[in-house]
Amino acid sequence: MPSKTVQETIKKLNFYAGPAIWPREVVIEAAKGLLNYQDSGLSIAEISHRTDTFAEVIDGARALIKELMGLGDDYSVLFLAGGASMQFCMVPYNLLPHNGTAAFLDTGRWSEKAIKEANLFGKTAVVGSSREEGYSFVPKSYVLDNSYAYLHITTNNTVCGTQLHHIPQTSVPLVADMSSDIFSKAMDGTQFDLIYAGAQKNLGPAGTTIVIVKKEILGKVKRAIPTMLDYRTHTKVSMFNTPPVFPIYCCYLSLQWIKKQGLAAIEKRNREKADLLYGEIDRNSLFDGTTAVEDRSLMNVTFRAKDEVLEAAFLKLAEEAGCMGLKGHRSVGGFRASIYNAMDIEGVKVLVELMKEFENSHA
Amino acid sequence: MPSKTVQETIKKLNFYAGPAIWPREVVIEAAKGLLNYQDSGLSIAEISHRTDTFAEVIDGARALIKELMGLGDDYSVLFLAGGASMQFCMVPYNLLPHNGTAAFLDTGRWSEKAIKEANLFGKTAVVGSSREEGYSFVPKSYVLDNSYAYLHITTNNTVCGTQLHHIPQTSVPLVADMSSDIFSKAMDGTQFDLIYAGAQKNLGPAGTTIVIVKKEILGKVKRAIPTMLDYRTHTKVSMFNTPPVFPIYCCYLSLQWIKKQGLAAIEKRNREKADLLYGEIDRNSLFDGTTAVEDRSLMNVTFRAKDEVLEAAFLKLAEEAGCMGLKGHRSVGGFRASIYNAMDIEGVKVLVELMKEFENSHA
Repeated sequence: MPSKTVQETIKKLNFYAGPAIWPREVVIEAAKGLLNYQDSGLSIAEISHRTDTFAEVIDGARALIKELMGLGDDYSVLFLAGGASMQFCMVPYNLLPHNGTAAFLDTGRWSEKAIKEANLFGKTAVVGSSREEGYSFVPKSYVLDNSYAYLHITTNNTVCGTQLHHIPQTSVPLVADMSSDIFSKAMDGTQFDLIYAGAQKNLGPAGTTIVIVKKEILGKVKRAIPTMLDYRTHTKVSMFNTPPVFPIYCCYLSLQWIKKQGLAAIEKRNREKADLLYGEIDRNSLFDGTTAVEDRSLMNVTFRAKDEVLEAAFLKLAEEAGCMGLKGHRSVGGFRASIYNAMDIEGVKVLVELMKEFENSHA
Repeated sequence: MPSKTVQETIKKLNFYAGPAIWPREVVIEAAKGLLNYQDSGLSIAEISHRTDTFAEVIDGARALIKELMGLGDDYSVLFLAGGASMQFCMVPYNLLPHNGTAAFLDTGRWSEKAIKEANLFGKTAVVGSSREEGYSFVPKSYVLDNSYAYLHITTNNTVCGTQLHHIPQTSVPLVADMSSDIFSKAMDGTQFDLIYAGAQKNLGPAGTTIVIVKKEILGKVKRAIPTMLDYRTHTKVSMFNTPPVFPIYCCYLSLQWIKKQGLAAIEKRNREKADLLYGEIDRNSLFDGTTAVEDRSLMNVTFRAKDEVLEAAFLKLAEEAGCMGLKGHRSVGGFRASIYNAMDIEGVKVLVELMKEFENSHA
């Protein structure tokens, strides 16, 4: 057991959208590994990535990801750098022929950015978009042409607070930006041909991005791809260059925590937390939800004060009570409570009580 | 003061080439920030990069880098991801016109890789190379044409153990891969137009790469550059996307440590350590240095046993004595003792004593 000094009791509730909360026991274990990894006398962050010690970490993390998603040897799991934003260009660099068309379901800010980069490499077709409606819902009726190079979706939209509760069925390769809801529920990975996810929501610290790719889709475009941007560089050898060692170690610890909890239990808890918070938003006379009820995100709960003048007062009350990171994204305002895996229901109850207290004193 | 439990006394001497040793006090401070940053009740790795808290970290790190290199507002300091390997393609993407030529001083494995990527974007000219001689020295007589788009150098070569002790004078933009000797000595940054350095040698954990760029050299190539690969994306705003928050925090702590020590004192100590170790290599009847004396690296000391049969026995003796990471790079064999800033002279003395002991028992 770590001593009290190592544990450094926390006093705040972390609702940040990302970088975001991790399970406390994972943070403590990560700090121990930073100081003296498994009593080896060295820090996990100070040893060569070519050691057996680190190979066990990265291979263990890859195996857990495959296990949690039900994937076999036809998929490779990569830990890359540069965030999901780098994947916005790597995906079309590797998968979109110069004269081909990539299809996009445009559900928010991150979809927009992915579309922008794809336009540098080929053509794009937006098959559905809620842009004109402030991305307040997920488009559901759209037609998919079999000639598309791939269909790109964003499974959860952190800014506006929507989530795809049904994954599209399609005959073209399916590419998913799963940055903000990966491992928040059970998910059959074989539905996808490529998944990418920045680690800094449900997995660990910012600094590594997981890419899960079905190997058979690679190598079909003709263009020359710079070595580091070519997925095949990273599927062919375990570590082409020095990877972000410590962020990967933290992901490995989180993945072990996820496996121990079980994805079914995690999903159940995430639903309970979201139901509790959306229930209060709907009940409370001072607040409004901002998205279509059927598309509400279980990860990022967005809402606003009916009277905008009250928003600063509620944020102040929340921060005084130790609830941090509730301010909405700068592009939309209002509030956003991010309730990723590591936020427990007790934390959500504190927020709900604050909303009731605020109603009592302002209604 | 951290408790004994946090400090977790280390027992090994870390000679790894990278990821490599950090100052112990920096590791301890980093672990504290991971658990509870400045008693905020939150981890530095769990808060939004858009908070004032993290802005102070990244702005503070940038300011220290400029101060240590004597740079003004005409330079931008970026913390990117993907390692120096990503810079091998970003540099020509941004600086090499399609019909232009980039000049390279080819001093080792990393120069080779940089040349390979540049060939995807334009022409390359190798103005000097020691490749045929196993990169055992640094070429010094070469002619530079004024028409080159830039000259690229690798200031320290980790694999073969050479270092550029004199920076070339040139009228074309000078680009330096300084991954393995940045901040190991006083250096006038204004000699360079672009410097890049992976953090995992003298600065911190793997996961971020420092790029220092003179802004006036950007925007001169005509090609479309993907957003994340365009240096201007990162010079125009402080953080375009979520950066590798925790690795950057660790760099900030290292930079404060470097400033406190002073670059002149660090350089003096690095020279003393290298003199001690090379002195023993030259004196000891069992070992040979592998590089030209005048080009010996102060960071990565490469040597071999005159009788190759003895190498395994020496490595075993060293590991039993807690000296880790002494095996030479897999492409060259022999030994490599990496003695970055954070290795103190007492550690080098332990290694020298082992070499003497080995001579006494095997000569």
